[in-house]
Amino acid sequence: MTGRLTVVGLGPGALDLTTPAVSKALAEATDLVGYITYLDRVPEGPRGQRRHASDNRVELERARHALALAAEGRNVAVVSGGDPGVFAMASAVFEAVETGDAAWRALDIRIEPGVTAMLAAAAEVGAPLGGDFCAISLSDNLKSWSTIERRLKAAADGDFVIALYNAASRARPDQLGNALAFLRPFKAADTPVIFVRAAGTPEANVRIQELGTADTDGADMRTLVIIGSSLTRRIERPGAHPWIYTARSERELP
Amino acid sequence: MTGRLTVVGLGPGALDLTTPAVSKALAEATDLVGYITYLDRVPEGPRGQRRHASDNRVELERARHALALAAEGRNVAVVSGGDPGVFAMASAVFEAVETGDAAWRALDIRIEPGVTAMLAAAAEVGAPLGGDFCAISLSDNLKSWSTIERRLKAAADGDFVIALYNAASRARPDQLGNALAFLRPFKAADTPVIFVRAAGTPEANVRIQELGTADTDGADMRTLVIIGSSLTRRIERPGAHPWIYTARSERELP
Repeated sequence: MTGRLTVVGLGPGALDLTTPAVSKALAEATDLVGYITYLDRVPEGPRGQRRHASDNRVELERARHALALAAEGRNVAVVSGGDPGVFAMASAVFEAVETGDAAWRALDIRIEPGVTAMLAAAAEVGAPLGGDFCAISLSDNLKSWSTIERRLKAAADGDFVIALYNAASRARPDQLGNALAFLRPFKAADTPVIFVRAAGTPEANVRIQELGTADTDGADMRTLVIIGSSLTRRIERPGAHPWIYTARSERELP
Repeated sequence: MTGRLTVVGLGPGALDLTTPAVSKALAEATDLVGYITYLDRVPEGPRGQRRHASDNRVELERARHALALAAEGRNVAVVSGGDPGVFAMASAVFEAVETGDAAWRALDIRIEPGVTAMLAAAAEVGAPLGGDFCAISLSDNLKSWSTIERRLKAAADGDFVIALYNAASRARPDQLGNALAFLRPFKAADTPVIFVRAAGTPEANVRIQELGTADTDGADMRTLVIIGSSLTRRIERPGAHPWIYTARSERELP
């Protein structure tokens, strides 16, 4: 077993948010495996790597293919957006290891972290993740809606800031609205709700609303949603959207 | 107001985990403001920037100092480890803006995201953050221990994976043990508990235990702790610590 498999996270989009460690792993790879949208973001390497593109719904097959290539001695990079360990490919790779060929456990597998979407989204509006927070995927492909509601309720009970991944898509147009409606009885109506589309790219777009009246217009697969805690605050400023941040202290501001 | 203030995150430690966007902001700054441990990680720039080092307990003063420098027209980088929006300097900067000179609201303030510690820690052991998760700081400098317990309980109720920041320090040697003891009645005894010290650096060190019997030996300020959910799994492998990952699906593995 001389092959290597590295699961890399490209970060949120802009090239200058990809870490040098990820760029190096990509340049050294002989084979790139991933969803075509992410592979298209990888610059052509000097050695003309083989690219194995797939559509977005076959994570486990893609992971097995990557492991099989590594077992043949290839140096494989599995390419995710954001961070590979957050709602991305790393978990699928280990699921494939656990359920696959026992020899795969001896492979040299590495995870190269990246800037995950909620960090880039938070940076666009200030510091809304400045207190304790949680991250919940609204996709119900792999878990039930009742699990999602259980998590939303717990997040409200704990007064966490909430980051919602996979908040909207064509296949699931109502999930985000349903999640906001579910939260309304448990949180203040003026809780900031932040929609950031294409965070960490030049096309980044920010909408700031309040939970009591928030609508989900324009939210899509590229939208990350952050819902404040009781300590999340709004700073008006001239000529731009307000800053949103979560205060570090439960005590009154000085 | 021609000055600029950029709050940057250096990432977890290794230079190749600092994004190019952060490196550029640091190279362009005329003044670097930050905790001395982080400033020492910034390579000397070509223009001999002014360095304003402070100790770790004066975030708000440090933020005000940085804003005052920017208001004088300087190009200031406020330097955090990890991501600046996660238990770091960004929130303190906005607190200083909200409570300070009204003119500071017109400053060009930017946040440059980074790889936060839990992502680097997760990458060292597999993909433990592969499901819904939360991040909780165990520091009770700015919040009460009862708030921390409320959050731990909610995290258990929601079956979140839990990442603990500021898990241990000389000033708070018992917090981590108390947090684990608090969680024991609410989670399975064989839940994986992962201690990663110096994640994302060449000295990274991993200890994997189970919640029922976990001890906190050796945990310190540089230790990030991850506690699994009911879907967190362990893959034994030859010659190294097991891989830990959280399964994406509630259904049985194929």
